[in-house]
Amino acid sequence: MAKNTTMGDSSKSEVWIGFDLGGTKMMAIVFDSAFNAVLRKRRKTKGHEGVQSGVARILETISETLAEAGIERGRLRGIGLGSAGPLDLDEGIILDAPNLGWKDVKMKATLEKEFGCPAAVLNDVDAGVYGEYRFGAARSSRCALGVFPGTGIGGGCVYDGKIIRGKTNSCMEIGHIQVIPDGPLCGCGLRGCLEAVASRLAISAAAAQAAYRGQAPHLLDIAGTSLDEIRSGALAESIDAGDTVVESIVRNAARHIGTAVASAVHLLAPDCIVLGGGLVEAMPDLIVGEIASSARKKVLPSFADTFTVVPAELGDDSTAMGAAAWVREFSAEPIAEKV
Amino acid sequence: MAKNTTMGDSSKSEVWIGFDLGGTKMMAIVFDSAFNAVLRKRRKTKGHEGVQSGVARILETISETLAEAGIERGRLRGIGLGSAGPLDLDEGIILDAPNLGWKDVKMKATLEKEFGCPAAVLNDVDAGVYGEYRFGAARSSRCALGVFPGTGIGGGCVYDGKIIRGKTNSCMEIGHIQVIPDGPLCGCGLRGCLEAVASRLAISAAAAQAAYRGQAPHLLDIAGTSLDEIRSGALAESIDAGDTVVESIVRNAARHIGTAVASAVHLLAPDCIVLGGGLVEAMPDLIVGEIASSARKKVLPSFADTFTVVPAELGDDSTAMGAAAWVREFSAEPIAEKV
Amino acid sequence: MAKNTTMGDSSKSEVWIGFDLGGTKMMAIVFDSAFNAVLRKRRKTKGHEGVQSGVARILETISETLAEAGIERGRLRGIGLGSAGPLDLDEGIILDAPNLGWKDVKMKATLEKEFGCPAAVLNDVDAGVYGEYRFGAARSSRCALGVFPGTGIGGGCVYDGKIIRGKTNSCMEIGHIQVIPDGPLCGCGLRGCLEAVASRLAISAAAAQAAYRGQAPHLLDIAGTSLDEIRSGALAESIDAGDTVVESIVRNAARHIGTAVASAVHLLAPDCIVLGGGLVEAMPDLIVGEIASSARKKVLPSFADTFTVVPAELGDDSTAMGAAAWVREFSAEPIAEKV
Amino acid sequence: MAKNTTMGDSSKSEVWIGFDLGGTKMMAIVFDSAFNAVLRKRRKTKGHEGVQSGVARILETISETLAEAGIERGRLRGIGLGSAGPLDLDEGIILDAPNLGWKDVKMKATLEKEFGCPAAVLNDVDAGVYGEYRFGAARSSRCALGVFPGTGIGGGCVYDGKIIRGKTNSCMEIGHIQVIPDGPLCGCGLRGCLEAVASRLAISAAAAQAAYRGQAPHLLDIAGTSLDEIRSGALAESIDAGDTVVESIVRNAARHIGTAVASAVHLLAPDCIVLGGGLVEAMPDLIVGEIASSARKKVLPSFADTFTVVPAELGDDSTAMGAAAWVREFSAEPIAEKV
Repeated sequence: MAKNTTMGDSSKSEVWIGFDLGGTKMMAIVFDSAFNAVLRKRRKTKGHEGVQSGVARILETISETLAEAGIERGRLRGIGLGSAGPLDLDEGIILDAPNLGWKDVKMKATLEKEFGCPAAVLNDVDAGVYGEYRFGAARSSRCALGVFPGTGIGGGCVYDGKIIRGKTNSCMEIGHIQVIPDGPLCGCGLRGCLEAVASRLAISAAAAQAAYRGQAPHLLDIAGTSLDEIRSGALAESIDAGDTVVESIVRNAARHIGTAVASAVHLLAPDCIVLGGGLVEAMPDLIVGEIASSARKKVLPSFADTFTVVPAELGDDSTAMGAAAWVREFSAEPIAEKV
Repeated sequence: MAKNTTMGDSSKSEVWIGFDLGGTKMMAIVFDSAFNAVLRKRRKTKGHEGVQSGVARILETISETLAEAGIERGRLRGIGLGSAGPLDLDEGIILDAPNLGWKDVKMKATLEKEFGCPAAVLNDVDAGVYGEYRFGAARSSRCALGVFPGTGIGGGCVYDGKIIRGKTNSCMEIGHIQVIPDGPLCGCGLRGCLEAVASRLAISAAAAQAAYRGQAPHLLDIAGTSLDEIRSGALAESIDAGDTVVESIVRNAARHIGTAVASAVHLLAPDCIVLGGGLVEAMPDLIVGEIASSARKKVLPSFADTFTVVPAELGDDSTAMGAAAWVREFSAEPIAEKV
Repeated sequence: MAKNTTMGDSSKSEVWIGFDLGGTKMMAIVFDSAFNAVLRKRRKTKGHEGVQSGVARILETISETLAEAGIERGRLRGIGLGSAGPLDLDEGIILDAPNLGWKDVKMKATLEKEFGCPAAVLNDVDAGVYGEYRFGAARSSRCALGVFPGTGIGGGCVYDGKIIRGKTNSCMEIGHIQVIPDGPLCGCGLRGCLEAVASRLAISAAAAQAAYRGQAPHLLDIAGTSLDEIRSGALAESIDAGDTVVESIVRNAARHIGTAVASAVHLLAPDCIVLGGGLVEAMPDLIVGEIASSARKKVLPSFADTFTVVPAELGDDSTAMGAAAWVREFSAEPIAEKV
Repeated sequence: MAKNTTMGDSSKSEVWIGFDLGGTKMMAIVFDSAFNAVLRKRRKTKGHEGVQSGVARILETISETLAEAGIERGRLRGIGLGSAGPLDLDEGIILDAPNLGWKDVKMKATLEKEFGCPAAVLNDVDAGVYGEYRFGAARSSRCALGVFPGTGIGGGCVYDGKIIRGKTNSCMEIGHIQVIPDGPLCGCGLRGCLEAVASRLAISAAAAQAAYRGQAPHLLDIAGTSLDEIRSGALAESIDAGDTVVESIVRNAARHIGTAVASAVHLLAPDCIVLGGGLVEAMPDLIVGEIASSARKKVLPSFADTFTVVPAELGDDSTAMGAAAWVREFSAEPIAEKV
């Protein structure tokens, strides 16, 4: 985890903003020239209040973050914003954020106009993986594949220093690789997608069934059979307390993630696979171990020793950090040019 | 549904008791010589209070049922009791009722001693299918297969007038036919069993995920994401209210039941497939139609027109009615011999 | 294997004919009153020469068999004939024998008219399983399930002393249980049927691929890559010679048969599973062991110790023997009545 | 297909050699400065005669090609060689060519020493896809994915102008993506790999079974049941002649390729998918259409219109052409420097 540091002489130097626009929370981080996090500011997203109000909150949050950190706008060299949902990466438009109910938000243009510096909009998982590639668990890897199981399962890949992307949108949708033909219905409408089988949500639903049947007494006790309650922490706690069926469910899901990782290894030959998100944080050894072991069993022998599987290191900062680093690397222009 | 009738002259004639011992409720029904239900009596099972107390409740319930119906014990010709769990069918022992926490209950012997008439213990689903075969939707069929989706998926088969059974226990465990290799963990410890994919509980868990993702707004509204709340009625209501994802989930499950039914058709060539239980009662057209259509697509052409798929007709009476009919047919001896 | 014995005084006693009508060969066997095979007679079937000529060959073969055995027609008490293909079991009609190109052959009536004794037409696999049940590996079992992998995979089941059957045709089509959803196309037009995955023919095709790729050098040497050459004997020989890939292929197929057997166990609770046919005969230990182990892993714990898996004992005699035994048991009337 | 052209004034200009080292045949092509094929020369590979003799044949073939084309060695600016099997791409070493029986062949060094110009060793499928990307069906695409079904199923991907590769070896092993969990054994030892299900070899094996069962009479007539005979041309001919089962088999395989392509689309978002190899050439419409339709059904809606699926255009030239183009683009140094 990047640490805050006293800035000393660098107090006049350039800074970057990384912004994580989530379904329920948003967070801005100011990074100094050494890419230490100077200050974090969190707010609720309140997507349902509409685009205009939401964009205003974003701009406000950034302004306040700079103000609280005592940084003049002139020192701001770029803003990187990570968001879910279909994007126009070149134009920096959030095309459709179903978790917010927003459409066609020209984020990049708005940010650049407001703050007078380059801005970039990235897919949040891509940004997170880029963060891990630059500063975290995948530092210095040649090809880093990130897999983040949550409500869905996000993926991202940094190959040769750049995020692999589609023409206008992001790709690396590992959550929609089919792992069980004719398997469970996915939220996307397809069947047997990885995330329909192995997301945190799918795990919670399987665990809820075990609780209902009386096979996960501890989980039933602490979280009942409601998916709102059976979250990563509750799953981890119930496993620690001896709910072996819940452990089997998690291992089974991890095994399927391993199958999809094996497919990605066959295609892309990543040398580093980074696993992140709340579920992984709640039980890193169990999940990283099981995914690694499953993936190794399902790749060609010549690939078996070509990759490591590691837990992410940057936690909640990863998206903001990666987005800011990306804008620094690929979009930021010299301040001089702006003047 | 069998109707109560005035008994007229038959008031002196023979009667039978059918008993449905469920995980939460028990029910006794007195049947007259025409096999009309004279009187039903329901009680909570309270399995957790122990075997002794539970058996006492059963005996009491039967006694009270007879008393309330104004029937002398001498007219009782047989008692048939349906119960879940591993049984010794010949000795009439409930070997292990995990939903009650009971083991090795010599039910048949106890009933026969107490009431001085023949008794039989049957698997509850077998009894229900036998009931449908004798009095309900599978009347006069040559080979009736019953499938009852609920927390699990029970099955039973009446072939040539008799329930197909194992050496000492029941069989026709259609819920544990594998429909998805390497599929979801079943409560039994195996993977990809039909009931792990298509039971009411599995459907509820899939629907809970849809509700959590915001894809089943009506269900979320009326039942949240808790499996305790998402029961058959709520599923039916949400489908009626327009939650199309829930309908897809139910259809998908029914399709898998159709696959297992097709396997059973290939093995046993039933001419009548009876579907029962709360889920089927809540949406008979949708489920019966989908199972029938799926099964027909997955059988050899020569089997496609050899069976009908129908909803059960006896509702909650089926187990008691089938158990009583079974004891009349195969265990009851003339009262004269008893004297 | 039933042995020929000298008939001694029994030379005047009653005899039965069992007839095995195969796609390429037919065989008649005369059984004495102790059900020893007195004489076997084989001929080519020559189905392509047409029904009339084919039926004539059958009648001739039976007549000659009796004549060669020195048995007068008056001593013949019944004829049982086993045949593949859709049958009318009650009327004894071969409805459609695709391997012969015959349709609607009233076999039972023809045999009864010609020989003046009861006749029965059975499905050949059913007859074979009945043979094993009466005289072979499944002697005295309560419920015997037979599985015979060959070009397809045939099944039969004797339950409570009788062959389980459909209304007019045979059933127990274990070869068409789906084991791989969306799996390989079966000859029947469905996908993922057991016989598309695990028949002798499917094994040969997989082995042919291994041979083609150079991974089964011995098989390539003795049989090339032609399915006409890669038969059970060649498979066994190549495994013995060290073609480990061929062994893996056979084990893999046997594992799938085990899955289908597990489904049948869940439905029918057989206590004896008999495996027969050329493939099993060529490598009984490997196949019986693998099927048994796979089936045991895939059944509910309460079923794991309820069945044995054994190789058939009657070899090529099983169908004729079972058919003859069936007619003796269920169709033969006292000769006196005929006179 | 690139055409030979008269070279006119360019007769003094620079040339490149592309070399396709196959399991049974090798081919050298001289390309002029406009990348027209000036001359092709084919020879048998004779891998079994050993590395030394094999390398000598390669050098000879190149020399003769130049000589026959009347080109002095000084005009040769680079040699690109495509080969199967694990390679060291940086060092240009063929680590293991199982189809030739060769190991650790320092091809790049040998070629550079012999001809005094830069050389590169590429995976043959990668080279072919690069060829299509530069000169063929994937011209000017942003991300070109190539899939070549044959004995196995090869894949390659040109992303942003470069071949996606592993650290030292090639990747994009689409043939080893798992499409059927617990599916057929692959030549690589894994189960359910795409190439075990849908390669030309797998198709031939399925068709051989249909021929054996009498369901593909035309195929049986022209090719029997031997995998050596059932090649792409025979498959196409039998389909044209009305063997509908063979068509179903090919469509089924193509459908599975579509599933794997969908996985690759989810990860890499290619805009152009090029299908090549003998099978595709023999029935381009059927296969391209079926793969395209299957892939579109199995991708997220947002990806459905982002790619085209097209047949390759360069035929047998693709590997040599791509390898030569690659060396020109990335390895060739100015001749001046050589002098």
